[in-house]
Amino acid sequence: MGLLVVGSIALDSVETPFGRADDALGGSAVFFGAAGALLHPVQMVGVVGRDYPMAKLQRLAERGIDLRGVTVCDGESFRWAGRYGFDLSTRDTLETRLGVFANFRPAIPEEFRDARYVFLGNIDPELQLEVLEQVHQPALVAFDTMNYWIQGKRTVLLRLLERIDVLMVNDSELRELSGDWHIHRAARWVLARGPKYVVVKKGEHGAVLVASSGVFYVPAFPLDDIFDPTGAGDAFAGGFMGHIARTGGLSPANLRLAMVYGSAMGSFAVERFSIQRFDEITPADVAERVRAYRDLVHFDLDADARDARG
Amino acid sequence: MGLLVVGSIALDSVETPFGRADDALGGSAVFFGAAGALLHPVQMVGVVGRDYPMAKLQRLAERGIDLRGVTVCDGESFRWAGRYGFDLSTRDTLETRLGVFANFRPAIPEEFRDARYVFLGNIDPELQLEVLEQVHQPALVAFDTMNYWIQGKRTVLLRLLERIDVLMVNDSELRELSGDWHIHRAARWVLARGPKYVVVKKGEHGAVLVASSGVFYVPAFPLDDIFDPTGAGDAFAGGFMGHIARTGGLSPANLRLAMVYGSAMGSFAVERFSIQRFDEITPADVAERVRAYRDLVHFDLDADARDARG
Repeated sequence: MGLLVVGSIALDSVETPFGRADDALGGSAVFFGAAGALLHPVQMVGVVGRDYPMAKLQRLAERGIDLRGVTVCDGESFRWAGRYGFDLSTRDTLETRLGVFANFRPAIPEEFRDARYVFLGNIDPELQLEVLEQVHQPALVAFDTMNYWIQGKRTVLLRLLERIDVLMVNDSELRELSGDWHIHRAARWVLARGPKYVVVKKGEHGAVLVASSGVFYVPAFPLDDIFDPTGAGDAFAGGFMGHIARTGGLSPANLRLAMVYGSAMGSFAVERFSIQRFDEITPADVAERVRAYRDLVHFDLDADARDARG
Repeated sequence: MGLLVVGSIALDSVETPFGRADDALGGSAVFFGAAGALLHPVQMVGVVGRDYPMAKLQRLAERGIDLRGVTVCDGESFRWAGRYGFDLSTRDTLETRLGVFANFRPAIPEEFRDARYVFLGNIDPELQLEVLEQVHQPALVAFDTMNYWIQGKRTVLLRLLERIDVLMVNDSELRELSGDWHIHRAARWVLARGPKYVVVKKGEHGAVLVASSGVFYVPAFPLDDIFDPTGAGDAFAGGFMGHIARTGGLSPANLRLAMVYGSAMGSFAVERFSIQRFDEITPADVAERVRAYRDLVHFDLDADARDARG
């Protein structure tokens, strides 16, 4: 039951009011993989330059990430630098150097082409389509995109929507894609174009799963300290897809649970710079946070009756 | 088991992108009462001028609101006029004419002084304290305030905190009161000053209950059309306190359920101008929306196991 991710493998330099990190492991495939591999082995496809810290990348292999799809090319690795303000909900991009990522053409190794679960990280939608041409018969394909592609490659994106199962974007991206500011109407606009599910990531305000069968809401986990929001969305995707790959279940109830695993991974991601937090936690920690989510949102319709009896 | 509300009784003129209402029933006591009375009889204390549409006010009595605490004074009624932008999350106040409300001194009728459940709507905190002097032995006191009082009467507010059980404010008010931008830390700051519970209303992002025993989160109900946000917070309070008064239960589980009743009432409030929606719905509609909330947030930790079996 292969779980494949195709996305960026980057070096991030991040400044927050609480500290800074330079040339730390980043990129959508890295955050997805670090989170997802806590639940299920991950097959990673991406590209790095010869300057990439390969020893650190190799440590991902020890966590259960198959790196045979990572190509090393002459040139510089993809670098991103950003700075967050005090409320951590907005950021300024200080620098984006695509390096070898500019000419990335995803080649899916033969061993990965039977992947049942595929996450198309935020890359050029034409490349996302190329990935789909190479995988044989996935059971569930999720994809992420960004405003840059929504503005520049809308036609390709709409073609992609016809072929994928889960659109996983943040609220502003969903609004821009659909032209509707209202999240739920916007999600239904997407559902009418192919996908079975829309996952809307709302940062500190949680995430929403919209399907024709209904809506499921999961809040952001209440953390005392959010250290660095970078990568939370891709870690969410890793938890979501990792849970589905591990269980093989595509029932609405299991997709809800996948949303909670996704949110749990997003909450871990923001507790440290880069993917550091995923070095520290175990699957048991993940399961414990998922249970804590239940305490956060569940309520008992008969609480009053129990009070009356008690 | 009396349920007492002391607050404003106003005439609201509201413009939204979807329409307008002029001199419609409004004010914290009115929204609280219209929502709360669907669950439990409400005792209302407030003041109106001789220009108030008494026939409309009288219809509140038919819903189970005891108006013996409403004083009619010479002068104009409290009028508020506001205009909402397209996203409905911000509003401009066009006019505030306090009228007879400027000299309001709440006199709690003898028949109301045994109230077990008390909601102090957003009025001068010195008047809120005067109310507390007049009620004998309430089981639960909740209160609301606003930035105006937080800035102008901080010392009185801090004295009030020592005497009430539930602080019920929006996120920006909580931040200003505590001086901490982080909602959960800010709530704990409040808990250290007396209240057992902090309810943080976050509008379209739902509401949070913070207690020493834990945190409970309830999202805003996904509505396709939000017509007029005015009064949603007071309707929330009406649902929250109405449920508690009806059941008499102060267990943590029942307070969670009260949060859901509050959210349900807030979601009804925004579906029409003024308190119109509460004319249309029955307690059965409220119960149905509360059940719909469960579908919105509950998940099954064993969903994957059930998938595997299925």
